[in-house]
Amino acid sequence: MNYSKRIGLLRRRMSGAGLQGLLVTHLPDVRYLCGFTGSSAALAVTRRAVRLFTDGRYIVQAAEEVQVAKVEIVPSAPAVAAVEWLAAQVALGDGAAQGATVGFDSAHTSVAELERFKTALPAKLRRKLLMPGKSLIEPLRWLKDEDELGIMAEAARLGDSLFEHLLGFIRPGLTEAAVAAELEYQARLRGAEGMSFESIVAAGERSALPHGRASQARLPRRGLLTLDFGVILKGYCSDMTRTVCLGKPTAREREVYEAVLAAQEAAVAAVSAGVECGEVDEAARGVLRVADMAEAFSHSTGHGVGLEIHEGPRIGAGQKDKLAPGMVITIEPGAYFAGEFGVRIEDMVAVTRTGGNVLTKSPKALIEL
Amino acid sequence: MNYSKRIGLLRRRMSGAGLQGLLVTHLPDVRYLCGFTGSSAALAVTRRAVRLFTDGRYIVQAAEEVQVAKVEIVPSAPAVAAVEWLAAQVALGDGAAQGATVGFDSAHTSVAELERFKTALPAKLRRKLLMPGKSLIEPLRWLKDEDELGIMAEAARLGDSLFEHLLGFIRPGLTEAAVAAELEYQARLRGAEGMSFESIVAAGERSALPHGRASQARLPRRGLLTLDFGVILKGYCSDMTRTVCLGKPTAREREVYEAVLAAQEAAVAAVSAGVECGEVDEAARGVLRVADMAEAFSHSTGHGVGLEIHEGPRIGAGQKDKLAPGMVITIEPGAYFAGEFGVRIEDMVAVTRTGGNVLTKSPKALIEL
Repeated sequence: MNYSKRIGLLRRRMSGAGLQGLLVTHLPDVRYLCGFTGSSAALAVTRRAVRLFTDGRYIVQAAEEVQVAKVEIVPSAPAVAAVEWLAAQVALGDGAAQGATVGFDSAHTSVAELERFKTALPAKLRRKLLMPGKSLIEPLRWLKDEDELGIMAEAARLGDSLFEHLLGFIRPGLTEAAVAAELEYQARLRGAEGMSFESIVAAGERSALPHGRASQARLPRRGLLTLDFGVILKGYCSDMTRTVCLGKPTAREREVYEAVLAAQEAAVAAVSAGVECGEVDEAARGVLRVADMAEAFSHSTGHGVGLEIHEGPRIGAGQKDKLAPGMVITIEPGAYFAGEFGVRIEDMVAVTRTGGNVLTKSPKALIEL
Repeated sequence: MNYSKRIGLLRRRMSGAGLQGLLVTHLPDVRYLCGFTGSSAALAVTRRAVRLFTDGRYIVQAAEEVQVAKVEIVPSAPAVAAVEWLAAQVALGDGAAQGATVGFDSAHTSVAELERFKTALPAKLRRKLLMPGKSLIEPLRWLKDEDELGIMAEAARLGDSLFEHLLGFIRPGLTEAAVAAELEYQARLRGAEGMSFESIVAAGERSALPHGRASQARLPRRGLLTLDFGVILKGYCSDMTRTVCLGKPTAREREVYEAVLAAQEAAVAAVSAGVECGEVDEAARGVLRVADMAEAFSHSTGHGVGLEIHEGPRIGAGQKDKLAPGMVITIEPGAYFAGEFGVRIEDMVAVTRTGGNVLTKSPKALIEL
């Protein structure tokens, strides 16, 4: 990963926002900017220096992982140490006299934490040095570089191989949890660092739960089964959903499946650089509206994915953000009928200049097991 | 779970803090108070009513899980809907005229979110209705009731059974990741909903990393191996660590192991209602100081555990919080020598009136494999 380049891009954005320094406390942002993967850290970026603050558990790991920043081990609260250091740096520079400001991430800083930062600073620096601001890093992270796209394609392929494995494993009588256990075991054996989120394995009536975690319920002889899961590979998340049928589908199940599939394919076809996210959502929603299933589609069409399973942009109704090359998003419409069944189909799609590169390769025609 | 009782205790604390209403947005708190396990929710509590706000994905699940609160499905941002509802409730009541206030959780509300809440409220209610405050729920959650203690003992037993299984599975040449895969597979098969945190499997030099995630490194023929893992059972986390030896330990490894074990046992023996957390930490730290390993013990002795893997109280140097019956804490001193090896031993302990009930039953004498 080219961390120096990322820091360079960030500094350009800092200049644009009039910031002499930036406090980075959201851990995926820290990892994105310097490669550190520990669970306790704050990164401080000024126009000249980059410093990572972490605690004694990470002495060895930080030295191994981080080259772009100087590492400082602190006894507690890395973020407070980082704020104090930033304040000192900025006070030393020319900026101080001209009302220098240090930005922080208001979306990932709690009200209580901000109070602690303020308490840690000398009174005269308190007002001057802190201002909430929109994340300067999020828009960078939305656009994946070649290294990231390569890893995410690899993560999606791993997801595909797991789905294929499950098709040979699934049989009536197994618990949903046993399916999840096999899925996660195989994921680990094939190199995943973990799962992107709690795996969803939801059979029969439970497929009507959009977030039906794998339970102790047993797979029926006949009925739909939704599998929604992702792996983490080199820090990056994959995300895919397939709904398969145990036994023969009913006419109604097939009808809903075909409608959701058509909606999903319409949304995938709508993906292209320059298109508003809301238009992609509408491509899916419109198909389900015509099929009289608009109300059964009770969530957004998708979301960005990367170091976090849910990133921007949000592919939801009326969203004005425009797709850009390098974004990786999910396209996952569904239709849910409480007490009956549900269907969801999801691919991960990389936005290109002229369309979308579907990273998930598993078949989407209804599979009968 | 007796959710009504918990709401009752919370209302007493709300009265004490002069609050007419409370916004609960931290998901483990939401679960604790009403049983809802979805990933998007806000709970609003007034002196007379309790209302859960969630989105369309959770219509069925919320109806199944939640009895203590009325459920309201909202199109987006449950927390904003909850704030608006709270404002309306409090404005209706007598409280409004007397400067009624609605509390929120400043530790789990971001600066940006607070801005959104304020924007959502009519100008005249904005200042009146929101005040940051210490969590009223955290102190309730620290004290586990009988139901919770029963589940946590069960979760600890499941952890023990997994450790025992691993003793028969581990052999030189396996990757750390393969050990983690087996661990997590067995956990799922035995009923765990998931793991409490990313499993630590760290062999040889990597045992010197206090947070050495399972990697693709292979287990050596000889050397220490640290296993730190936990399961989630009915929402509650377990947490345990054992360090075992592949082959014969060196004299130095044995010396360090015995010192860490003595420190761990001293801290366990120090656990009792009324004791300051810092005293428990000092019990462990003192033993390692005498053994000239004070610097090698680079973290706190432990932490509370429950619906979250890291809860209060913190068992660290100088901590003044007092242990109380019903708290469940970890006792996990360690000693780490970069480039050589590390040792950590951890039990989960329930605080009782007269001491500590060690929930982790696995043997602690050094095991050679």
